[in-house]
Amino acid sequence: MIIIGEKINSTLKAIRPAIEAYDVAAIQQLAKAQAEAGATYIDVNAGTFVKDEPERLKWLVETVQQVVKHPLAIDSPNPEAMRVGLMANKNGTPVLNSITAETARWEEVIPLVREFKPKIVALAMDDTGMPETAEERFNIAKRLIENLGKEGVKLDDIFIDPLVRPIGTGSHYGRVALDTIRNIKTTWPEVHITCGLSNISFGIPVRKLMNTTFMVAAIAAGMDGAILDPLDGKLMAFMYAAEALMGEDEFCMEYISQYRDGFFEGVI
Amino acid sequence: MIIIGEKINSTLKAIRPAIEAYDVAAIQQLAKAQAEAGATYIDVNAGTFVKDEPERLKWLVETVQQVVKHPLAIDSPNPEAMRVGLMANKNGTPVLNSITAETARWEEVIPLVREFKPKIVALAMDDTGMPETAEERFNIAKRLIENLGKEGVKLDDIFIDPLVRPIGTGSHYGRVALDTIRNIKTTWPEVHITCGLSNISFGIPVRKLMNTTFMVAAIAAGMDGAILDPLDGKLMAFMYAAEALMGEDEFCMEYISQYRDGFFEGVI
Repeated sequence: MIIIGEKINSTLKAIRPAIEAYDVAAIQQLAKAQAEAGATYIDVNAGTFVKDEPERLKWLVETVQQVVKHPLAIDSPNPEAMRVGLMANKNGTPVLNSITAETARWEEVIPLVREFKPKIVALAMDDTGMPETAEERFNIAKRLIENLGKEGVKLDDIFIDPLVRPIGTGSHYGRVALDTIRNIKTTWPEVHITCGLSNISFGIPVRKLMNTTFMVAAIAAGMDGAILDPLDGKLMAFMYAAEALMGEDEFCMEYISQYRDGFFEGVI
Repeated sequence: MIIIGEKINSTLKAIRPAIEAYDVAAIQQLAKAQAEAGATYIDVNAGTFVKDEPERLKWLVETVQQVVKHPLAIDSPNPEAMRVGLMANKNGTPVLNSITAETARWEEVIPLVREFKPKIVALAMDDTGMPETAEERFNIAKRLIENLGKEGVKLDDIFIDPLVRPIGTGSHYGRVALDTIRNIKTTWPEVHITCGLSNISFGIPVRKLMNTTFMVAAIAAGMDGAILDPLDGKLMAFMYAAEALMGEDEFCMEYISQYRDGFFEGVI
């Protein structure tokens, strides 16, 4: 699994003050803890600072790079902040989060893809909005993959986000997400899938129960990446179990190693 | 989900003494507790009493029927015990567990199917043994479904058990089980799938973690029945979450009701 550690994000109430205060120690602690807990990428997001997002995102990139060598996920709705973040990046090839098939978004972000050649998260939405069915999502993903290919982006550098919608607003959205994941991964085995897990549970109680359930089902459907909190030991335990279940962990070595290191204690 | 409550089974060390001692109160308590916890069927199994299994199974059937109206799963390797159990049954149509495509087993059990018209668990194995691949399992299931059909058994009365093998003995066995489930359920939507969950984790640590992970993935693949312990609150919580995720629980009503009744407390 490719894990994008989601903790350094200004939308998280507990984290925003650390970004607000330019608290180097707090951010570096979060970066190190996520790296040690198994994150592949460290996400940095200052998106709620509307006035000075570029400056703050640059600071996050620099602050994190001082303590971890892990590549970053540069996560922003703002192309100018993205550019500043990409320029500040020194930790190998980052993931840029994100592009869509919306005309305006595509035209803003694709120059950055050409210039910096990052890996890229591509959201399955276009100018008609967020698609309703798995088929529509697949068709948008197909267009994104083909058009990124024309820009020289390798399949292996693309992360499709199927855009999970809350099952509380439509009972079919779980199936839609899982079918989309399966169809994309079957058609392009080299393309990665990633998604934010927690949208699925918006508006229903015991969200961690549903998020964990969704993660397991999504891994079984072919999801090989996730934006999640690697410091959540229970979620990570289910992730290791799901990987072993799907044969991605030969002889269950990683599963058993996590167990031996005490990480499964009290998990269930 | 069709839940076959597995607790009244002489292979369980904690339960065997109650069957040994003809302990009516203990068995009835287990029957009632499983029924209240959501079991669709109450399994009765005295299979480890080699000498007097028929007598003990008959006693279990009668003892359980005194306190619950739920239909039974009559579970035995022994056709004579099966017959005695089926004759003692008064709680509506039971599930007979199980038949296989092995010639000898088929010929022993099919007369009981003709005579008592139970629902039937059919294990995907034949005279060549336990199949290795999902395709072989599917082909055996196909033969079982077709041949049971010739005996007048409706699709809706058949439970195919894909025969889960431990991932500790082969990393591919999780995928084999899930692919078999998906292929059968896609081909015959009316046929039910059931399996014992715990085989998957034989030989690896923290078995409940892997069993729960497998159950979620199997439900996402189309499994609509399981032989499990309905008194295991954490397992049941993930079952409700998986059903809601797959759109089998409109507006998440059952999920929310379980939450309101306090059943999700401390689950994760």
